[in-house]
Amino acid sequence: MNIPHGATIPLSLNTVTVKERWGLADCIEGCARHAIPGISPWRDVLHAMGVQAAARRIRDAGLVVTGLCRGGMFPAADPAGRAAAIEDNLRAIDEAHALNARCLVMVCGGLPPGSKDLPGARAMVREGIEAILPAARAAGVTLALEPLHPMTCADRSVLSTLGQALDLCDRLGLGLGVAVDVYHVWWDPDLEQQMRRAEGRIAAFHACDWLVPTTDLVFDRGMPGDGVIDIAAIRRMAEAAGYNGFTEVELLSRRWWGEEPDHVLAVIKERHAKSS
Amino acid sequence: MNIPHGATIPLSLNTVTVKERWGLADCIEGCARHAIPGISPWRDVLHAMGVQAAARRIRDAGLVVTGLCRGGMFPAADPAGRAAAIEDNLRAIDEAHALNARCLVMVCGGLPPGSKDLPGARAMVREGIEAILPAARAAGVTLALEPLHPMTCADRSVLSTLGQALDLCDRLGLGLGVAVDVYHVWWDPDLEQQMRRAEGRIAAFHACDWLVPTTDLVFDRGMPGDGVIDIAAIRRMAEAAGYNGFTEVELLSRRWWGEEPDHVLAVIKERHAKSS
Repeated sequence: MNIPHGATIPLSLNTVTVKERWGLADCIEGCARHAIPGISPWRDVLHAMGVQAAARRIRDAGLVVTGLCRGGMFPAADPAGRAAAIEDNLRAIDEAHALNARCLVMVCGGLPPGSKDLPGARAMVREGIEAILPAARAAGVTLALEPLHPMTCADRSVLSTLGQALDLCDRLGLGLGVAVDVYHVWWDPDLEQQMRRAEGRIAAFHACDWLVPTTDLVFDRGMPGDGVIDIAAIRRMAEAAGYNGFTEVELLSRRWWGEEPDHVLAVIKERHAKSS
Repeated sequence: MNIPHGATIPLSLNTVTVKERWGLADCIEGCARHAIPGISPWRDVLHAMGVQAAARRIRDAGLVVTGLCRGGMFPAADPAGRAAAIEDNLRAIDEAHALNARCLVMVCGGLPPGSKDLPGARAMVREGIEAILPAARAAGVTLALEPLHPMTCADRSVLSTLGQALDLCDRLGLGLGVAVDVYHVWWDPDLEQQMRRAEGRIAAFHACDWLVPTTDLVFDRGMPGDGVIDIAAIRRMAEAAGYNGFTEVELLSRRWWGEEPDHVLAVIKERHAKSS
């Protein structure tokens, strides 16, 4: 493969990366200060600012919203819980539309509390997506199904592989895409084949790194370059599949949450320049 | 599916389950005391007793050796390291033969230190297995390839899925089988299909449970029944694929290592009777 890299890959900041110290206004200003052209807000910081105000400030700052995090979390123990999840997802679609976000990132949800019924939870995910897809299509919001690492299967996402996400895309049709986060897919022996299959359907590309050792199942993601993931190789697969969009850095890390955010952004910029 | 269950599933104790307090002699006596008909030693406790003495005592106690843990760990940074791994695996084959073990469980190894070359590590695994397979065949020892949970990909096993293990079986031929540990495979959206494909090739069936939350990537496995894995459903898949052997309980758990081993064995027996 011989795709040229370099300064051509635009960078986006996922707000969770600095969530302990910065609200959305700080993130918007921080992106401008560090010349980071993309931003991907989580809904908690978005709601804190207000959706319309946020849309205006992000637009005024000239930032692209590479995604809104997150929709999903469909499985629930009872029909009322599942209906509430669908309602919340419809609000998220409206918010993604208001932000002109490239996609709404879907973290689909784990097993309902006390359940061991994995096929049942997967059916709830499929039904949830089916229920909101007409609204997403009407709003022009791409739902980016994000397979999450299998270690999150019980409590965050029964959608575990890119192949499984693409099966859902095939089944449910237009309006769906996938969010490829290298942290969640790097280990997959089927990755190359599924990335080819994802051609034209990659709506987001997320980067962080797998640390050795990893000391926490959720909050120990590594800064790109500090771990073992060949991020550049996976990015090349995405580009070969037609994706030329942003690389969004999304770190859930107690270690980096403890650092001064301007320093975190500087390190992200440096690593991104080095790896891309 | 309507396969009868009950007292018909024989139980085996993997020695790592009580490793903090019991050596191999204690485990052999404990199995006899608790009427557990199978045992699966790790090589550290085996070496501490001596292979010939262990083989004799296990035979005298009337126990079936459901597996020897473990061979594998092939990837290394240099040829000398890879050759040393192969030598060690040849010794493990001799030991499994001496114990009349149903299989040698293969934990294939992660990335060499400092490497991000996952395809390269997988090639080292394949080459390592190819190198030892003639000796395994000659000794009549089945090499049971154990896919490990993707969260172990960096440091323990680049063999992550049952499908990948069966691809290796297909490619390398006779003398290979798979070890199905529910902890490692329960999340896999392709599990049912791959379990069918595994027909006649399941050499071992391991059980423990996935806890919510899981607080450690290695040492927080749950006692069967304490987590979210539908162990009985996966066991039924194994039986539909022709496996009628032992269920081996293998717990790596700081919590259970702190308990009195006779209590641990009693709980295992009780849970096994309930779930099978």
